[in-house]
Amino acid sequence: MLSGDKKAVVLLSGGLDSATILAMAKEKGFILYALSFRYGQRHKCEVASARRVAESTGVVEHRIIDIELGQFGGSAITDAKIEVPKDSSDLGDEESIPLTYVPARNLIFLSYAVAWSEVLGAFDIFIGVNWMDYSGYPDCRPEFIAAFSRTANLATAAGIKGKGRYEIHTPLMNMSKGEIILAGTKLGVDYALTHSCYDPDEQGKSCGRCDACRLRLKGFAQAGIADPIEYAE
Amino acid sequence: MLSGDKKAVVLLSGGLDSATILAMAKEKGFILYALSFRYGQRHKCEVASARRVAESTGVVEHRIIDIELGQFGGSAITDAKIEVPKDSSDLGDEESIPLTYVPARNLIFLSYAVAWSEVLGAFDIFIGVNWMDYSGYPDCRPEFIAAFSRTANLATAAGIKGKGRYEIHTPLMNMSKGEIILAGTKLGVDYALTHSCYDPDEQGKSCGRCDACRLRLKGFAQAGIADPIEYAE
Repeated sequence: MLSGDKKAVVLLSGGLDSATILAMAKEKGFILYALSFRYGQRHKCEVASARRVAESTGVVEHRIIDIELGQFGGSAITDAKIEVPKDSSDLGDEESIPLTYVPARNLIFLSYAVAWSEVLGAFDIFIGVNWMDYSGYPDCRPEFIAAFSRTANLATAAGIKGKGRYEIHTPLMNMSKGEIILAGTKLGVDYALTHSCYDPDEQGKSCGRCDACRLRLKGFAQAGIADPIEYAE
Repeated sequence: MLSGDKKAVVLLSGGLDSATILAMAKEKGFILYALSFRYGQRHKCEVASARRVAESTGVVEHRIIDIELGQFGGSAITDAKIEVPKDSSDLGDEESIPLTYVPARNLIFLSYAVAWSEVLGAFDIFIGVNWMDYSGYPDCRPEFIAAFSRTANLATAAGIKGKGRYEIHTPLMNMSKGEIILAGTKLGVDYALTHSCYDPDEQGKSCGRCDACRLRLKGFAQAGIADPIEYAE
């Protein structure tokens, strides 16, 4: 257990992975600061989910930052002109990088987390990246996280002054979706509050067919637990 | 000379350093994409200067991005409650990090530059950081830039697919302010368009006393050139 005054900044998308790491950081005794982004994603209900998850987990502060990633385009997630792939056959194929990849997204999210951490005097940052049930995103790999940690410690006054070392915690890195759901369920995560779908309908119901839905459904099947959210049709 | 179709993203603050690197990137034959930020800085006229510099240098596109760094506070640059130091004695002292340091600013700026580069198909990013006339900012050091380059190549689909390697160009790293001004003058940079002061008056006139003004004035003195901008009083 920690001394009781150690703060952590947790990147909270509102999906099931980030809800799980928030519960894990709480379990470790960190004082929780949650950070979410409105970055032009199609699935804006993600942010509403993040709010519900943050509230239910008892975070001290939840910041939601508007960033203009969408203006760069280049991704099915932020560009209405690119269709979200459905029923794709290359799920989990490490060779191909899917259309839902958002250029440099985790690099930008983590950079903001470092900025906030520095002001808070926090040195622990949690991000729910995952290498096992890998969607092919380069910025979810352990090499990227290691290089980023090094950079964060060189980028900041806190790092230089030796007040502490930034640590990027990736507790889900080597877990399958099924294992993540089992671990979160044990910690009391309410997955009914989470949202995963890249392309929900107007009522916010998940499509069940995009990569994010399929990974989620596969995870609940692996865990032998029913997914509590509603799907379209 | 380059083949004629190589794009560069240039971080353009509107100060004299970034005006100089923009001219240097042009001289090298790059197609220029300028990137500026409104990040809650006191000296908002910086952005107007960036616009004038971009126009006068013939950039293909100039993006100005709103980011909410100010909401984190922690710097005299973005927090009205912290006073900008004047006539400070520790100018260039590497041990102390000044109050005008903005947490993780260059980390965030460079991360956006990588995101835009990836969408543009560019691999060359210019940033006017400087190690010689060092203001004590950790994110201006060569170690930080080297670590960031490595991270950028691991963070992106373009980096992974081996389409190219991101290169962070820091042509001013080892130059004195005087040398920078001489080099820029040779390339035709109009320093009357630039702005450096952290704490300008309501007419946008520079104070002449903050660290940024003092470094600038020292540079023009070193170069033996008159500073073409107006100062208060």
